Amino acid sequence: MAEGNRRYQARWYQTVQKRLPVLRWLPKYSLQWLQLDIIAGLTVGLTVVPQALAYAEVAGLPMQYGLYSSFMGCFVYCLLGTAKDVTLGPTAILSLLVSSYAFHDPVYAILLTFLSGCIQLVMGLLHLGFLLDFISYPVIRGFTSAAAVTIGFNQVKALLGLQNIPRQFFLQVYYTFSRIGETRTGDAVLGLICLIVLTGLQQMKNRIPTVYCMERFSVKISKLIVWATATARNALVVLFAGLVAYSFQVTGSQPFTLTGTMPQGLPPFQPPPFSKVTPNKTVHFGEMVQAMGAGLAVVPLMGLLETVAIAKAFASQNNYQIDPNQELLAMGFTNLCGSFVSSYPVTGSFGRTAVNAQTGVCSPAGGIITGSLVLLSLAYLTSLFYYIPKSALAAVIICAVAPMFDARIFHTLWQVKRLDLVPLCVTFLLCFWEVQYGIVAGVLASGILLLYPIARPPIKVSKHETIILQPASGLYFPAIEFLRDTVNKQALSAPSLRTVILDCTHVNSIDYTVVIGLTELLREFRSRRISLIFISMQAHVLQILQAADLEGFYNFKSLEDAEKSCEEELCRINEVLLDGSDSILPTSGIIQ
Amino acid sequence: MAEGNRRYQARWYQTVQKRLPVLRWLPKYSLQWLQLDIIAGLTVGLTVVPQALAYAEVAGLPMQYGLYSSFMGCFVYCLLGTAKDVTLGPTAILSLLVSSYAFHDPVYAILLTFLSGCIQLVMGLLHLGFLLDFISYPVIRGFTSAAAVTIGFNQVKALLGLQNIPRQFFLQVYYTFSRIGETRTGDAVLGLICLIVLTGLQQMKNRIPTVYCMERFSVKISKLIVWATATARNALVVLFAGLVAYSFQVTGSQPFTLTGTMPQGLPPFQPPPFSKVTPNKTVHFGEMVQAMGAGLAVVPLMGLLETVAIAKAFASQNNYQIDPNQELLAMGFTNLCGSFVSSYPVTGSFGRTAVNAQTGVCSPAGGIITGSLVLLSLAYLTSLFYYIPKSALAAVIICAVAPMFDARIFHTLWQVKRLDLVPLCVTFLLCFWEVQYGIVAGVLASGILLLYPIARPPIKVSKHETIILQPASGLYFPAIEFLRDTVNKQALSAPSLRTVILDCTHVNSIDYTVVIGLTELLREFRSRRISLIFISMQAHVLQILQAADLEGFYNFKSLEDAEKSCEEELCRINEVLLDGSDSILPTSGIIQ
Repeated sequence: MAEGNRRYQARWYQTVQKRLPVLRWLPKYSLQWLQLDIIAGLTVGLTVVPQALAYAEVAGLPMQYGLYSSFMGCFVYCLLGTAKDVTLGPTAILSLLVSSYAFHDPVYAILLTFLSGCIQLVMGLLHLGFLLDFISYPVIRGFTSAAAVTIGFNQVKALLGLQNIPRQFFLQVYYTFSRIGETRTGDAVLGLICLIVLTGLQQMKNRIPTVYCMERFSVKISKLIVWATATARNALVVLFAGLVAYSFQVTGSQPFTLTGTMPQGLPPFQPPPFSKVTPNKTVHFGEMVQAMGAGLAVVPLMGLLETVAIAKAFASQNNYQIDPNQELLAMGFTNLCGSFVSSYPVTGSFGRTAVNAQTGVCSPAGGIITGSLVLLSLAYLTSLFYYIPKSALAAVIICAVAPMFDARIFHTLWQVKRLDLVPLCVTFLLCFWEVQYGIVAGVLASGILLLYPIARPPIKVSKHETIILQPASGLYFPAIEFLRDTVNKQALSAPSLRTVILDCTHVNSIDYTVVIGLTELLREFRSRRISLIFISMQAHVLQILQAADLEGFYNFKSLEDAEKSCEEELCRINEVLLDGSDSILPTSGIIQ
Repeated sequence: MAEGNRRYQARWYQTVQKRLPVLRWLPKYSLQWLQLDIIAGLTVGLTVVPQALAYAEVAGLPMQYGLYSSFMGCFVYCLLGTAKDVTLGPTAILSLLVSSYAFHDPVYAILLTFLSGCIQLVMGLLHLGFLLDFISYPVIRGFTSAAAVTIGFNQVKALLGLQNIPRQFFLQVYYTFSRIGETRTGDAVLGLICLIVLTGLQQMKNRIPTVYCMERFSVKISKLIVWATATARNALVVLFAGLVAYSFQVTGSQPFTLTGTMPQGLPPFQPPPFSKVTPNKTVHFGEMVQAMGAGLAVVPLMGLLETVAIAKAFASQNNYQIDPNQELLAMGFTNLCGSFVSSYPVTGSFGRTAVNAQTGVCSPAGGIITGSLVLLSLAYLTSLFYYIPKSALAAVIICAVAPMFDARIFHTLWQVKRLDLVPLCVTFLLCFWEVQYGIVAGVLASGILLLYPIARPPIKVSKHETIILQPASGLYFPAIEFLRDTVNKQALSAPSLRTVILDCTHVNSIDYTVVIGLTELLREFRSRRISLIFISMQAHVLQILQAADLEGFYNFKSLEDAEKSCEEELCRINEVLLDGSDSILPTSGIIQ
């Protein structure tokens, strides 16, 4: 009994470990891990603070909401996440989606976070992660490339200091170019300098030579400084731009558009809003849900897609396994909790996850440092954020999204598989109009490419003495009308025809609609006095047709068998067919 | 030049003939055809008038709208139809759909007719008839069986003379049974008599022996009378019930619920309404369209489905060809024109088409007689329709829809293909709640059954010295994650493994998402120092992978080739893999 009890406890502990992955790595935690985790956590923190401010701008929300969204994910993922490198937080793509679905209103954004969290939790509990399998690579690339262009161009107005530009992409392009003369020199110069510095540091980072043990100390140190500067480039550039802006402020003139005042302190801990009260009227929960519409499907699904894609990429790079459904639970729980601290929907960030991995993080505990850094900034630094020039933040975002645009994919697909250009282009182009239309149309387009060979399977026709038709794959209901038409057309094309053979070698599956279609086909052929014979049918397919008890159904093992039997048996049947009425035929016969 | 001109004219005439099939049969028209067409036209006319009144009741519209809907199809189909037997007009199924989508308001119903017509025309012009292929047989049977129950039960209240029963199916069942005590004796008795007479005549019709030339004249005549009575049974029963009701009216008491007054005369010829004006407010076009919602997809598609299914059935029975896209044009044009004479959406009627075929119609010209009969009834008989008891019409409908309920299909599917019970039951059950939910859910369920083998293809695993994996079918994007997981799991299950072989014999197609997935898989295996080798790849699949230029991709013609080469080449590669870093590997190699 004690044995059974112990076994039960062990199983219970395993289940808990699966749902609380922190229990797996915490017992192994060491001082060396702690050092590396602290360095990684600080580095990611220095990246997330400026990015959070900038992404809030992309989402169309006041800037503090970016920071409100940046810490919950770090803490929750530390407990529930299965990938050591992943960091959850605001991302470019989700910010873009939030800007379409939350109407630049924090109330909607927070409710969207809450509902997305609930949906992701339910999906995780129902193991619906497999739905991602139906989003093909061209659709993902089309969407991310379009998002990169949209988000990047969205920042051009901030980079140039233009005011009152509409948010819709096409209007934005039009107004940005038509009002380019109103560019503010200060913003444009600072923005371009930041852009150049960021690009330069990024390039430098890609080319840092490895540090070898044998090298001189001064070489090591200089390499380390270059590495640290390049890794924390976002924070450094924003800090530098803020200092410049502050100097100008002190001298009395201000050539830059600044971030401006931001409420100090941590966000309130309160339940998400389930209605919106304005002086004029109250918008109820139902109306808010209806207004967000497709967003309630697109936001949780794209969030999931980003996290799982990133987790898989880094898991395979660093050689560990992740559990997509546990990732879904971690993200759902992050959003659910986030909605209590005014967060907008978050997901895994590719850029910051890469920083985390490169800095050598050892466990998700690095997230605790990152989260604490964000909380500290919120508590003590918001007054300093006043001086951050908007054009510097714009440069940070442009550099973050630029690698997402993948122009080579068009060329690659042209060379490798041209048909896949259809979902790519459909998604890419329609995403400029409305993100959800692009994704839905892309998924539909790849679905059509998927279903086309099922609905119109290639049928090989060979004409000897008789006509032999051979479908190239399984027969499913969308194909049966096509098969009937093809068989009929072939049969009508040869006036003196007496036998048509259907070679079912490759038919590995069949459904009831096909059975009904074949029944009809047999009846039509009977009334035309032509015999329709099946050959080489696989056993389990034959079983289905036998169960259906088709009238006048004949199956032979091979073409030779059919021809041999035709000499004896079928000629007799044909005679009967040609002489008498239908009623004297045997109702069903399977000759093997 | 005259030759070219003549050829051009001939081609032009062929195109016109294709779009105006009347030109094909009119030149061949004979006096004998005329006789048979007149008899068939009259017989169908005698069926359509009582049915039209009854179906209008099903659609929740005033009864004259049934007749308004019954003549346009006859005339238009005569010009544009490709099947001689088909008659267009109000049907049970479309009436049920109209009752859900037109809110029992003629203004909505007529607009729905107009829009359905436009949608069907556009579908016909774009050759979208193939969309029907994606509605599987179990979904159709589930829908028609549920519709038969819904429509049949809907008539029970009229049969029993119950008043004020709600229209929603479940409420209807509840209230019909809870208020069964309020049954009006007159209605119930008359209804049951009509039901028994109709059923008896229908049974008689199925058993009429063939008329032989040799028989005595009196036998022939009696057989003919039985046939005529059975064929025109609907009209006769309604006439008889009307006469009974009239006699009671004359004597001063009236035990039946009567049809009541109906506006005399033909419907006005006017454009369909594009807005609805009430004393209180105006409902605009956009709001009306939004209110009809899914109906704008379901009504045209189900209309198309009914017509094409019926046309195909009778075309194959009577050995002629139909053109689904021309049928779509004929029906679209019928609805478009119908909306100018206050018609609600119409389609091919199975019952009346069968009557038409059995009476021996020779061309669609029979429709002219039917249409004229309806117009004459509208012009001169509406005052007589006052006396038709509603319970008699209910009996007509119950007898018309009863054969649509197919209980055997559940048993048949259980025996033949159990998986197809899923879409059947989903459709059948959900259709009681809302028709569109049932159809959409059924189509989705059969879609999932269709996609499942694509997303989770069977992978045969054989373990010899190495592990060999063989996917059973083509690899498409929904399957790649599953393939990766399977391959990884197999590779991790054998610790000392050095080679995994992927046998691609059955892989007849591949897409770019799969290419990316294989790239990742190769990279993962490289980092684990295991070689992943492809064998028996089909030429066009290999071409795609070659174009993608995968790093470390090896393909062999057969397992033997791979094993042979392994001795020489691969062992070397494996040594390199085990000793050195990735960078000294050749970037891509295809050994054949």
